[in-house]
Amino acid sequence: MDERTALQMLAADLSGAGDDAAVVGDTVITTDMLHETTDFPDGTTRYTAGWRAVGASLSDVAAMGATATAAVAVYAAPEFDESDLLAFVNGARDVCEAVGAEYVGGDLDGHQEFTVATTAIGDTDDPVRRTGASPGDAVCVTGTLGRSAAALRFFESGDVERANDLFRFTPRVAAGEALRDHATAMMDSSDGLARSLHQLAEASDCGFDVAFDEVPVDPSVDDVARDEADRRECALHFGEDFELVFTLPEAELETIRPAIDVDVTQVGTVTESGSGVVADGEPLSDRGFTHGGE
Amino acid sequence: MDERTALQMLAADLSGAGDDAAVVGDTVITTDMLHETTDFPDGTTRYTAGWRAVGASLSDVAAMGATATAAVAVYAAPEFDESDLLAFVNGARDVCEAVGAEYVGGDLDGHQEFTVATTAIGDTDDPVRRTGASPGDAVCVTGTLGRSAAALRFFESGDVERANDLFRFTPRVAAGEALRDHATAMMDSSDGLARSLHQLAEASDCGFDVAFDEVPVDPSVDDVARDEADRRECALHFGEDFELVFTLPEAELETIRPAIDVDVTQVGTVTESGSGVVADGEPLSDRGFTHGGE
Repeated sequence: MDERTALQMLAADLSGAGDDAAVVGDTVITTDMLHETTDFPDGTTRYTAGWRAVGASLSDVAAMGATATAAVAVYAAPEFDESDLLAFVNGARDVCEAVGAEYVGGDLDGHQEFTVATTAIGDTDDPVRRTGASPGDAVCVTGTLGRSAAALRFFESGDVERANDLFRFTPRVAAGEALRDHATAMMDSSDGLARSLHQLAEASDCGFDVAFDEVPVDPSVDDVARDEADRRECALHFGEDFELVFTLPEAELETIRPAIDVDVTQVGTVTESGSGVVADGEPLSDRGFTHGGE
Repeated sequence: MDERTALQMLAADLSGAGDDAAVVGDTVITTDMLHETTDFPDGTTRYTAGWRAVGASLSDVAAMGATATAAVAVYAAPEFDESDLLAFVNGARDVCEAVGAEYVGGDLDGHQEFTVATTAIGDTDDPVRRTGASPGDAVCVTGTLGRSAAALRFFESGDVERANDLFRFTPRVAAGEALRDHATAMMDSSDGLARSLHQLAEASDCGFDVAFDEVPVDPSVDDVARDEADRRECALHFGEDFELVFTLPEAELETIRPAIDVDVTQVGTVTESGSGVVADGEPLSDRGFTHGGE
């Protein structure tokens, strides 16, 4: 059974699963694991690793429209070097501070491969699910897409400073809070924009019609993309970006835009059930990296 | 730097660290990682692994005197076998149900070694810290000690059914709740009774005087111990048991005993600062397994 099939099986089995975070009373909780061979390319600093791993969980809290309150992490490695560990903790703490949450420590584990398990919690009495998109709603994203795809190319080419910069993202907690009374469906883009659109469409039982020209591609992608097809791959399918993908009534978009601390771009419109996910008039492949996620 | 030194360094650096769980407002949160080579001997079922891993985090919530509300887990393995995964989830869910908490899922991760990262949260507006023991207080433990040491021997000798039974423990959440207005200091015994006593004494700046004859040794230990010294090692130093170790005014012990759903045994008395931790008149070695923990 592959990871995606297994996650679907568990989502059917567990009432709390199947969204970016589980809801328990007024609390949301989410957990993730990242490890060296798949998530931290050669050149990733421990500061970036701490920031990114904790940030991934905070992004899931943001995707519920919740106020992030705290995060913990398990740092597992073959050995515990003091400067590595402090760099990791500083990265974890700084990403928490960036979104108004508290990093409250965690656990250490002696482990063959450098591995990080993170958990974040947040508060909301009205979480935004993936299920509420309606035909006519605007389909929007925060920020830009393709940063992580570009970062990977920079790691490969040895420009580790630029790669690390791109790898540290701001979890969209403030945007999620501003959107929580407006968004009809929301998730983050960690599995890639294409898969996020498919997941929102499926959960909401509707279709999406988007235009690739409207997708805000990160400028760094233009520095690495081999051609237009590659640029599209980086922005739509690679994933590992942590932007919010959401729907809301079109009339509300301009009203709330000033309250959101990051650019919001409308990339399409919600269509009737059965219309599928269409980009530029063609079915959009439900394809991306399967990196895990709630 | 070994794990214990690294944990001490982090405890000094992070305000939330240094207790069984971190406190964030009225919420406590704790996270742990367990993995095959060190925590799940050959013969451990996936049901037991789910129970035990999630139970370890629930035990940390119990040690704060908090009401456990929910737990999540990351299940990381080289492959995802459906029956393994369901067994794990059932174990995780059953241990949560045993303490009135909700298992709300988590994440999957493709990983070379079977590894589990768990997080539990709970509610309390008045957490029990490790710092409040006073001279004259009774030193007590819940349940019995040595179960996990005995389990390991049963795994080694091939009696995996008995070993699995012993490996599945009831986190002392109900006892922790009953104790929260009475205990002056509390933690769990996961690093071994001896180390727990040392940690409580150090945090509370006092000494402990205990009698080994009073320590409630699990009957299973008598089936595996080679001699009296080995029996003592299993009960005092091996650890990996998840009982509560706590102090409280002696006068309150008999009053609250009926409200606690498990046997409580007084094993000694809190003494003045500088007296050290003494067992049967001899200094008790601050020695145990370092399995991790908050």
